[in-house]
Amino acid sequence: MRRISDGCNWPKRRRRKLFPAVFNPELNLSLSQDEMALRAALRNKCVLSGLLSQRSSCSSHGRVFASPVLAAQRRNNSTSPKIDVDFDQSTGVAVMRLQSPPVNSLSLEFLTELCIGVEKLEMDKSCRGLIITSSQPKVFSAGLDITEMYGKSPERCGEFWRAVQEMWLKLYGSNMITIAAINGSSPAGGCLMSMTCDYRIMADNPRYSIGLNETQLGIVAPFWFMDTMKNTLGHRTTEVALQLGLLYNPSEALKIGLVDQLVPEDQILTTAKQTMTKWLAIPDHARAITKSMMRKPTIDKLTSNREADIKYFVNFITKDSIQKSLGMYMEMLKKRRG
Amino acid sequence: MRRISDGCNWPKRRRRKLFPAVFNPELNLSLSQDEMALRAALRNKCVLSGLLSQRSSCSSHGRVFASPVLAAQRRNNSTSPKIDVDFDQSTGVAVMRLQSPPVNSLSLEFLTELCIGVEKLEMDKSCRGLIITSSQPKVFSAGLDITEMYGKSPERCGEFWRAVQEMWLKLYGSNMITIAAINGSSPAGGCLMSMTCDYRIMADNPRYSIGLNETQLGIVAPFWFMDTMKNTLGHRTTEVALQLGLLYNPSEALKIGLVDQLVPEDQILTTAKQTMTKWLAIPDHARAITKSMMRKPTIDKLTSNREADIKYFVNFITKDSIQKSLGMYMEMLKKRRG
Amino acid sequence: MRRISDGCNWPKRRRRKLFPAVFNPELNLSLSQDEMALRAALRNKCVLSGLLSQRSSCSSHGRVFASPVLAAQRRNNSTSPKIDVDFDQSTGVAVMRLQSPPVNSLSLEFLTELCIGVEKLEMDKSCRGLIITSSQPKVFSAGLDITEMYGKSPERCGEFWRAVQEMWLKLYGSNMITIAAINGSSPAGGCLMSMTCDYRIMADNPRYSIGLNETQLGIVAPFWFMDTMKNTLGHRTTEVALQLGLLYNPSEALKIGLVDQLVPEDQILTTAKQTMTKWLAIPDHARAITKSMMRKPTIDKLTSNREADIKYFVNFITKDSIQKSLGMYMEMLKKRRG
Repeated sequence: MRRISDGCNWPKRRRRKLFPAVFNPELNLSLSQDEMALRAALRNKCVLSGLLSQRSSCSSHGRVFASPVLAAQRRNNSTSPKIDVDFDQSTGVAVMRLQSPPVNSLSLEFLTELCIGVEKLEMDKSCRGLIITSSQPKVFSAGLDITEMYGKSPERCGEFWRAVQEMWLKLYGSNMITIAAINGSSPAGGCLMSMTCDYRIMADNPRYSIGLNETQLGIVAPFWFMDTMKNTLGHRTTEVALQLGLLYNPSEALKIGLVDQLVPEDQILTTAKQTMTKWLAIPDHARAITKSMMRKPTIDKLTSNREADIKYFVNFITKDSIQKSLGMYMEMLKKRRG
Repeated sequence: MRRISDGCNWPKRRRRKLFPAVFNPELNLSLSQDEMALRAALRNKCVLSGLLSQRSSCSSHGRVFASPVLAAQRRNNSTSPKIDVDFDQSTGVAVMRLQSPPVNSLSLEFLTELCIGVEKLEMDKSCRGLIITSSQPKVFSAGLDITEMYGKSPERCGEFWRAVQEMWLKLYGSNMITIAAINGSSPAGGCLMSMTCDYRIMADNPRYSIGLNETQLGIVAPFWFMDTMKNTLGHRTTEVALQLGLLYNPSEALKIGLVDQLVPEDQILTTAKQTMTKWLAIPDHARAITKSMMRKPTIDKLTSNREADIKYFVNFITKDSIQKSLGMYMEMLKKRRG
Repeated sequence: MRRISDGCNWPKRRRRKLFPAVFNPELNLSLSQDEMALRAALRNKCVLSGLLSQRSSCSSHGRVFASPVLAAQRRNNSTSPKIDVDFDQSTGVAVMRLQSPPVNSLSLEFLTELCIGVEKLEMDKSCRGLIITSSQPKVFSAGLDITEMYGKSPERCGEFWRAVQEMWLKLYGSNMITIAAINGSSPAGGCLMSMTCDYRIMADNPRYSIGLNETQLGIVAPFWFMDTMKNTLGHRTTEVALQLGLLYNPSEALKIGLVDQLVPEDQILTTAKQTMTKWLAIPDHARAITKSMMRKPTIDKLTSNREADIKYFVNFITKDSIQKSLGMYMEMLKKRRG
């Protein structure tokens, strides 16, 4: 078992498993390259917003600069780590625990860490499978962090949205076997994250729910959320689910195919690992090409519309009417908690 | 409650609900504009067939001329109204009753009225939901009126087909919440109309049936009927349903997802209104954008192939062999009734 | 009842049905043309590989030369016929039995015969329906013949792959009503062949299985296998089925829609014929156009990428790593049998 860490943000913790830690030079090399690129970029006065605006033009020429999510993360290097990754070298399976209290809201910072974590594992050839689960009680992820969309500058909103896209691109396009162990509610962005995985196991607790409930907040799930759900549920079920912003309890989610399996909550990780074993029996190369062929059209659609999608989001979210809605929603949440 | 009427075709009837009628200047304005455009066009000797042939060229420049369906309707202003619209201002919900005896066949005249009725409601910002049901016993709509396709000139066939397209475009592209209260059989065009709605409730009477049964008559459902069904049932079920021209009883229709809910016939309108309430709880703006995003590719496909689709239909339907088939079919229907 | 035969490969057998054989000049004419074209091509020193390389360029100008699958077959004219076709002129239904011992592996020779058989029936206007079943015990078809992919020259691999494409194009694009009577296991290419049919009836024997299990052998189902399965099962089920290379038993296959009906094995042909009668009740013309409209986009995708698909396959299959995998797999199969 080996814990993935970039050495500054994730604290060294006691290893929970019996296998010895193994140094992986390949992984570390690639990380250093990212860091070197970042430093080079910063040396060249290529500031963050510059990185962002250049992103689209350099993406076709390979990863010359550090990704904006990497860059952004540097600004928050004093906080506690928001994800915890246990990589079991003996099985080739990593377990990633979301641990951003209280409800794993997908803030820019959290998304940044998540993307780095996934990218590290992706680059590590010995990592074949990834299980995503939550360390927080009762919630897998509450979805996009509304505070990132309220009262923020257009630039910041754009940066946030790029990170959301990046998370989806990394997970939906992952070559690893990805399993969501959904041990709590998973609305909106949490549902999206679950749907990027190859398999979804949900805790059979009727108080948990999952779904893309954007319309209930007066906002609209973007086309690639929609496409991901269409690929999962088909056109008709998606049309109803998205128009009504439906949240399904586990039984309903199973029935429509939004999750693949229900288990008692205390068995969710065991089941995820057993399922992973089944998937690991398939030759990686053939499985990964197959996965990529199935998902490529959907991924290409965002990749080739990424900047337009950011513009559209920023324009939409900074509207007075939408800001007002979000403000009222946040007030309501505050009152509920108070 | 307010009754939508254009003042000449729909008789003033006793208001069935308790709420006072409200004058809506915005709605009336837009109607007057349509009428003014029509009059201007007629003044300029732009006769009906001319309006039709110009339709495609001016559609990209906005609605300069009255639509052909509007135009056509003027020729039939002496007949009884074929749709009845009750708009309840207090709920924002309109109930549209199809009342074209004996079986709500979709004639050019009926389609024209239907399109005008839907357009009026669409333009009325206070109308948020539309329930479509039938006033005729045992039938929701028998589908396209075969007499419109038999022994008619190519021009007339083209005019008819454009009206069928218009009906589909208006309903499938509606921003309103649309619910079909299918209180009788709904073959072919009746099934198409049902499928354009956001939700379908069918009377649980095993003698009723619904489906696109075109092939049984030797004709072919056009691509946009097919696309609408694929969006509803998926590819495989659609392939079998269309090849065999299957008509499903309510239970079967529910099972494959062609309808969403079955209720005893006398509860169908109550249920439709209850369902509408659920949909009305979602902010209109977000819901309508979501609906439009889901349906846009399908709608665009017809919009950009509209003239070709009309040509194809006219060419197909005026073939001797097809005319002969239709003639035989009509003879058979006559004998059955006799 | 009439037996289709090209007079040299398929032996004259006792006619099993009561109806007299009928000479069909139209069918025989078209066959002679094929033969004449072949002879002309050979006279002109247009050797087999030449035919292959010219295929793409002449395909757009109609069938001037014999197809490569026809050509290839000539080299094997000493072997027993691998398909047996019973055509019942009175019903318009042909039953094609796959009889390539031991397991109906789809070799180049077998595919060639199959394509010729289907093409003959397709060109015979009196043949309206085709039932495909197996003469071999316990297996419908074991799929692509691995020996055609192991240790063969790139040219030969390309020839083989073109024949696989041709089989799919002919069956998926057939105007006839096609029913698969799956009386045994049907993995990989056998599953593909089944999925091209309009209806699938499987013997209800839990020891039989069906599915696209390519990844289990370390290879990848090409995009048109994938598309065919997506059209049958939808996106999500296909994604799991293909990534894991799942083989389903009959009950599972019925549940996900991979087959349409299960019957006891001894009733499979009777049921297929009864089902065929239902389909024959629909006017051929309307049904065939409908079928073609549903399948055209999928067929066009291969037609316009055919050469690239062959190149991709040849490049992939001749890789050392893949050859090694196949070699190990064949060794394993030998040991199992031994």
